[in-house]
Amino acid sequence: MRMYDIILKKRRGEELKTAEINFFVEGYTKGGIQDYQASALLMAIFFQKMNKRETSDLTMAMVRSGDQLNLNKINGVKVDKHSTGGVGDSVSLVLAPMVAACGVPVAKMSGRGLGHTGGTIDKLEAFKGFSVDLSEKQFIKNVNEIGIALAAQTGKLVPADKKLYALRDVTATVDNMSLIASSIMSKKIASGADAIVLDVKVGDGAFMKTFEDAKALAEEMVSIGKNVGRDTVAVISDMDQPLGFAIGNSLEVIEAINTLKGNGPKDLMELVLTLGSNMLILGKKVENEEEGRKLLLQVIKDGSALEKLRSFVKAQGGDVSYIDNTELFPKAKYKIEVKAKKAGVISKIHAEAVGIIAMQLGAGRETQESSIDLCVGIIFNRKRGDKVNKEEILAIVYANNEEKGNLAAENLLNEIIISNSYEEKIPIIYGVIK
Amino acid sequence: MRMYDIILKKRRGEELKTAEINFFVEGYTKGGIQDYQASALLMAIFFQKMNKRETSDLTMAMVRSGDQLNLNKINGVKVDKHSTGGVGDSVSLVLAPMVAACGVPVAKMSGRGLGHTGGTIDKLEAFKGFSVDLSEKQFIKNVNEIGIALAAQTGKLVPADKKLYALRDVTATVDNMSLIASSIMSKKIASGADAIVLDVKVGDGAFMKTFEDAKALAEEMVSIGKNVGRDTVAVISDMDQPLGFAIGNSLEVIEAINTLKGNGPKDLMELVLTLGSNMLILGKKVENEEEGRKLLLQVIKDGSALEKLRSFVKAQGGDVSYIDNTELFPKAKYKIEVKAKKAGVISKIHAEAVGIIAMQLGAGRETQESSIDLCVGIIFNRKRGDKVNKEEILAIVYANNEEKGNLAAENLLNEIIISNSYEEKIPIIYGVIK
Repeated sequence: MRMYDIILKKRRGEELKTAEINFFVEGYTKGGIQDYQASALLMAIFFQKMNKRETSDLTMAMVRSGDQLNLNKINGVKVDKHSTGGVGDSVSLVLAPMVAACGVPVAKMSGRGLGHTGGTIDKLEAFKGFSVDLSEKQFIKNVNEIGIALAAQTGKLVPADKKLYALRDVTATVDNMSLIASSIMSKKIASGADAIVLDVKVGDGAFMKTFEDAKALAEEMVSIGKNVGRDTVAVISDMDQPLGFAIGNSLEVIEAINTLKGNGPKDLMELVLTLGSNMLILGKKVENEEEGRKLLLQVIKDGSALEKLRSFVKAQGGDVSYIDNTELFPKAKYKIEVKAKKAGVISKIHAEAVGIIAMQLGAGRETQESSIDLCVGIIFNRKRGDKVNKEEILAIVYANNEEKGNLAAENLLNEIIISNSYEEKIPIIYGVIK
Repeated sequence: MRMYDIILKKRRGEELKTAEINFFVEGYTKGGIQDYQASALLMAIFFQKMNKRETSDLTMAMVRSGDQLNLNKINGVKVDKHSTGGVGDSVSLVLAPMVAACGVPVAKMSGRGLGHTGGTIDKLEAFKGFSVDLSEKQFIKNVNEIGIALAAQTGKLVPADKKLYALRDVTATVDNMSLIASSIMSKKIASGADAIVLDVKVGDGAFMKTFEDAKALAEEMVSIGKNVGRDTVAVISDMDQPLGFAIGNSLEVIEAINTLKGNGPKDLMELVLTLGSNMLILGKKVENEEEGRKLLLQVIKDGSALEKLRSFVKAQGGDVSYIDNTELFPKAKYKIEVKAKKAGVISKIHAEAVGIIAMQLGAGRETQESSIDLCVGIIFNRKRGDKVNKEEILAIVYANNEEKGNLAAENLLNEIIISNSYEEKIPIIYGVIK
């Protein structure tokens, strides 16, 4: 078998055989196949696409390229959740304790934030002392005893994806559905999940800008899951404005805690209930979404979800006094009000731009090497569809540098569009792909 | 400027600016741009194509990547000729002396053969002592004094093409018209030609298998020539059967000598006259093809073309006694007759397969490192359209190894198709693109 023939075959639009895909992924990971042949194939795949069978094969070849977590020692169906990335997306912080409180084990691998989107690990580190540095043994023990554990994804998991993603990133071959879907799914599968619930974001703050693209990606991933024997459900949700009110690491943690206390923003709660009820269905805990929602609301009401967060944070070394008193989280020095220049109705909050403003404040990373400031960020007072008066406070910028804060406030005002009227109804949930 | 953006732009089907093409070619030649980005761009170019302006820019960027021959010290219009490669293609050996004898200087850079196609330098080395190792000064002196000189293309000419071709060769990105055309034209332009006549072969022994592809390549190259100020004419000619009767280095030289003596095969002569008359037009020697043909036939008739070959071979160290007595060329040990198994008419001689058979006999190179045997090859007695009787000799295999020779004869018989009737008329010349 020659890599040249594989490139030519795909360039001609032909279907690659399982053995050819394995040859490529194995050879590329081990170094026998060079970057220049891999990038030529990736570009050919961009133009000629891969079918569902090829995409599943690619996914499993990547899974086999490195270690695979064995979670057999965890009782019950392990359901993982993955978001394609958004602004102000604190879903995991709320969802994981809720689902665990319902009795479905949550054994989660997470990543850090990059660019305008945040990462769950960064957010959890807002708890003083919190660590994701768990041994595999400790990780499994925590899930079995507490019902929840969260670790950083190691480099030994899916090295093929790491290498391929780095190559795609510099050769303009990132945005192909098969390549995106296999990259996400390979990591979830190697992390040992029995079933997967995906939150596929759509809108200007999301990787997928249109519903059609989001739907295509969702379908691609659900198809992979089915083909490789992991039940997968995808929820398509709005990222055309930031989710909830808070953006920034400790600010989002506080919002998550408040949500677990029963005071969550409407959009965040709706998304959590949709994702959570599907996780409970896949975890064989409930029969349908309605039952799932009921159970999820119950664990908020009775305080068991909040209690689960407490046990989880404590088990990973975090200071749980912060949960009872969110005032303990370190505060940013400056709070700068962003006021409406005119009366009207908010017709749009540019999610991506807002994410970039938060990143520039220090809430996110411009490059993988950047350090982040856990305190800074933005709290919105008003969201899309809200009527506002002139001079009304739209949002508050939290900054540790006055100049950066003022600049952020100025920029933020440009990203909140006030119109005379607003009729479009963008749903929180576009649909669920099973 | 970033290579990433250039790849993305072309991937999206947008036109690259001159500066972007220059950035790529310069960066890639100097090593600042890596193979994996170059191959991704090449694959994007394969799918999205380049327009005529981009193709001309690419050509000139490649020309500037290395040395350029300055032929200003040669009097007259320097007209170069290039063939896209064929089987039994001894045109240059006949054409160069003829055109020089007509008074148009021939300053030619040539290459060696590879795969099923031969190279002019290998053929000329059948003259004992012949050398292409001329200094630039000597090269120019020979053209001015004799009217003709031939040198090997040096690695310093168009290093960008050398590097890009090697990459295309392993990434399945060879067969794109803009890339093929710019590769050929950049070498001709860097070699200092004022005007260029191209022999674009079409048929199973050619790089271009269909007339449409050959025409597209011809038009692409003529357009480059026009855009960069070098008059270019392309002749599209048949390579669906070998050209002339002889295949193999010294065998083709003998055929060329005989042609200059007035005994040339019809197809070879027709092609030589078409190419030659266009060279004379571009060289401002004649007004039209008719005048050109007359003059070219004249220099054969009066012996001045043969005399020109003699001066040329002598000036480059070759033994000219071979010209007067072609029996002096070393002979292959074995001559094996290939006889018709049935009566009929020859409807097809598979040119590529015949080229490969000759290569396997030792007449050509399988890889660039292979050495070649100048004596071996094939002489056809009959060509397409000829009626043959059962047991009639169709061709003779010249071999230095009996086993190889017998195998070649056996294989050759399969490549000469004898039918009951033959009506298709494949022209020698399909057309001339100006």
